[in-house]
Amino acid sequence: MPISARNRIVGVVKTIEKGEVASTVKIEVVRPSTITAMITKEAVEELGLKEGDEVEAVIKATEVMVSKD
Amino acid sequence: MPISARNRIVGVVKTIEKGEVASTVKIEVVRPSTITAMITKEAVEELGLKEGDEVEAVIKATEVMVSKD
Amino acid sequence: MPISARNRIVGVVKTIEKGEVASTVKIEVVRPSTITAMITKEAVEELGLKEGDEVEAVIKATEVMVSKD
Amino acid sequence: MPISARNRIVGVVKTIEKGEVASTVKIEVVRPSTITAMITKEAVEELGLKEGDEVEAVIKATEVMVSKD
Amino acid sequence: MPISARNRIVGVVKTIEKGEVASTVKIEVVRPSTITAMITKEAVEELGLKEGDEVEAVIKATEVMVSKD
Amino acid sequence: MPISARNRIVGVVKTIEKGEVASTVKIEVVRPSTITAMITKEAVEELGLKEGDEVEAVIKATEVMVSKD
Repeated sequence: MPISARNRIVGVVKTIEKGEVASTVKIEVVRPSTITAMITKEAVEELGLKEGDEVEAVIKATEVMVSKD
Repeated sequence: MPISARNRIVGVVKTIEKGEVASTVKIEVVRPSTITAMITKEAVEELGLKEGDEVEAVIKATEVMVSKD
Repeated sequence: MPISARNRIVGVVKTIEKGEVASTVKIEVVRPSTITAMITKEAVEELGLKEGDEVEAVIKATEVMVSKD
Repeated sequence: MPISARNRIVGVVKTIEKGEVASTVKIEVVRPSTITAMITKEAVEELGLKEGDEVEAVIKATEVMVSKD
Repeated sequence: MPISARNRIVGVVKTIEKGEVASTVKIEVVRPSTITAMITKEAVEELGLKEGDEVEAVIKATEVMVSKD
Repeated sequence: MPISARNRIVGVVKTIEKGEVASTVKIEVVRPSTITAMITKEAVEELGLKEGDEVEAVIKATEVMVSKD
């Protein structure tokens, strides 16, 4: 079912660590992908972002969901 | 400066689209990476997640930050 | 106290599960409501969203707060 | 495709407002549903949350995704 | 109305910038405050966090709500 | 390394509470700061936000990251 989330990155589960309520899942990415970020225009300008820049996409683990067929 | 965010994915900026306040930045991932998700234990169990599963990491664009040296 | 959050959905607590640091709270919605999503324009177009479409609002549990009088 | 997100609320699109980069989508919920929140144990205790309490689930619009078949 | 969100920081609106759909609001903090973060235990250990450390709380603008009486 | 996140608030770690997977970190803010929020234009208008208003910036603990040199 298509979803508005811009980022769906295919990978393989490496480890799962379960707490009482929360769990962490580590996924090894197996395919090249493109990541879309929505940030403020102010941030684009302050960082001087332009095409071709080497950057890092930074994502808090609490923001990542897991989908499995 | 080290940060608690578990996911720092190296890539190259492909396109930038600027609105009046918000912008979207597309980043082409150039290096294999591992993605960490924190989800409920209930979700791990309902999906039957286990090591070796092929999955997708799903991330809303509004949750992705960009870092640049 | 009014808040910018667009979604305030009235319900009744059904279950609470406490971990050491995190907890999950399940709330049974008791009143019809409207949910507002802010997504990229690109997602609206790729999904071909239009008025009258049957859809699902998808929300990660870590993004839901609880307010109580 | 099953997803770890605990909340999938069925509804009908009422209005769509498009900006240059971001859009808002309003969804009228058409079916009773249960909402799961993951919050700190400290918040559960400070609010004195218990089963049967009338509460509000509060969700920022930027955290809501839309899924459509 | 009390809310589970751990962080309520009092301030004064300095500037508001309106786009078609999104807006940014800058708030000058006027009172000392404490900020609570929920991060993975792994991050606490990798950063070697301990009481007394000077740190930065890093928050994406899309995650900040505004409340006004 | 500069990051798009608009909010970097300097403080001192007061307490750390570790669960099995998640942890909470409380940070005492030690320096005046400005907080940037990105909210819907609709919220700005419904709250009647204007420069000089006393408000609260409300942030869920799961959205706060910690950075340390």
